[in-house]
Amino acid sequence: MDAFENIDLFRELDAEDFARLRDASSERHFATGQAISAFGARADHMYYLRCGQIKLHRNDEKGQEAVLGIVTEGEWFFALSAFFPIRAPADATALKKSDVILIPADKIRDVMCRDAAFAEKILTYTAENIHGLTDKVADMSLKTPVQRVSYYLLKEFLKNGATETSFQLPYKKSLIAGELGMTAETFSRALAVLKEAGVKIEKKRVTLPHINALCRVCDPGVAQNCPHHEPGRCPEP
Amino acid sequence: MDAFENIDLFRELDAEDFARLRDASSERHFATGQAISAFGARADHMYYLRCGQIKLHRNDEKGQEAVLGIVTEGEWFFALSAFFPIRAPADATALKKSDVILIPADKIRDVMCRDAAFAEKILTYTAENIHGLTDKVADMSLKTPVQRVSYYLLKEFLKNGATETSFQLPYKKSLIAGELGMTAETFSRALAVLKEAGVKIEKKRVTLPHINALCRVCDPGVAQNCPHHEPGRCPEP
Repeated sequence: MDAFENIDLFRELDAEDFARLRDASSERHFATGQAISAFGARADHMYYLRCGQIKLHRNDEKGQEAVLGIVTEGEWFFALSAFFPIRAPADATALKKSDVILIPADKIRDVMCRDAAFAEKILTYTAENIHGLTDKVADMSLKTPVQRVSYYLLKEFLKNGATETSFQLPYKKSLIAGELGMTAETFSRALAVLKEAGVKIEKKRVTLPHINALCRVCDPGVAQNCPHHEPGRCPEP
Repeated sequence: MDAFENIDLFRELDAEDFARLRDASSERHFATGQAISAFGARADHMYYLRCGQIKLHRNDEKGQEAVLGIVTEGEWFFALSAFFPIRAPADATALKKSDVILIPADKIRDVMCRDAAFAEKILTYTAENIHGLTDKVADMSLKTPVQRVSYYLLKEFLKNGATETSFQLPYKKSLIAGELGMTAETFSRALAVLKEAGVKIEKKRVTLPHINALCRVCDPGVAQNCPHHEPGRCPEP
């Protein structure tokens, strides 16, 4: 599998360990809408999304959906299984045609035991994910829907280089609403408030009235990714 | 430290490892309201709450608070530090006079390398905490405040044996509201709805109209803790 060469986490493995993981792995292809794994199922592989897009979600009996995360190209999911067999914390469904590489968790553990640098990489990756989850709980408690949508737009603005007032959202609005833990109606109301403040969103295209339009929702975590950040001159932080 | 003998996670360690961890650990005492650790600070110890009660929280600039968890006697916090140095995901503040045992994470790691059963215990404990966080995000997305409060009461009812219609809440209502990720006002409104359904809450005492009063919010996860559970006869699940 050539795809293996491009996996960041594996880049500094020695040749033997690299070959061992590669030979134990398998690649699977999923069509748009296809189920990859079910909530509660045993997850004893790490899943690497080679290409495509995946939704991690839970649905209740009434069909309502909580989107727990969107996995994009080059990201991992169910990475915690590297440490021990887990139950999948969510359903995983392909949003686009997706190629997924499955690496058996027990093989990953073998390599982690031998290679401390590799173990640390996996731990760091996992820890960042868990921190993200904690951040999400705090945000859902503390921020209004308008603040949460603004903050999301600010992060996308920064990802796009923070120089253009117009940029593209990575996926459709209903999915972003779900990821932010709000209903489509709440999300629409938030967009209406932002529109009054001059922030236009048409389909996936966002247009800000000026590059400082979202500064009010900035915080130290995102400020470090902002090329315009000047402590003292910025309104926040 | 005699307290060490009572720590569940350490019960099956061999005498040498047990002594090594005990000798490296220290105990600290905190007064009510005292800060134990700050959000973002380096956490290179596992914290064991020997007695007392601790709140894990984040506060925004406006003084609003997100309660990320309540730690009670015999529980751990910042347990993820066992695997690698983390930044504390929240402020930790003593809600009552609290005694905390700090065990250096590097010593825990040494023992985990030698003792697979011990490593698995710590991993299982940590995984349950992370799953709890995922559950919380899903609940906050999917359930109404009334459903979330009812579900909380159902879990407390089951913890209390599920035979008495009257039971005591573990801490005051404002804290429970925070833990459920809702404002005091939202929480009060939910209680008013429950009152109309015959569920009385006076200070910390809850009185249900009958033992099946909360069955509607049951799910497979809590049903397994219910002594009255009979698939087919129960309304849910």
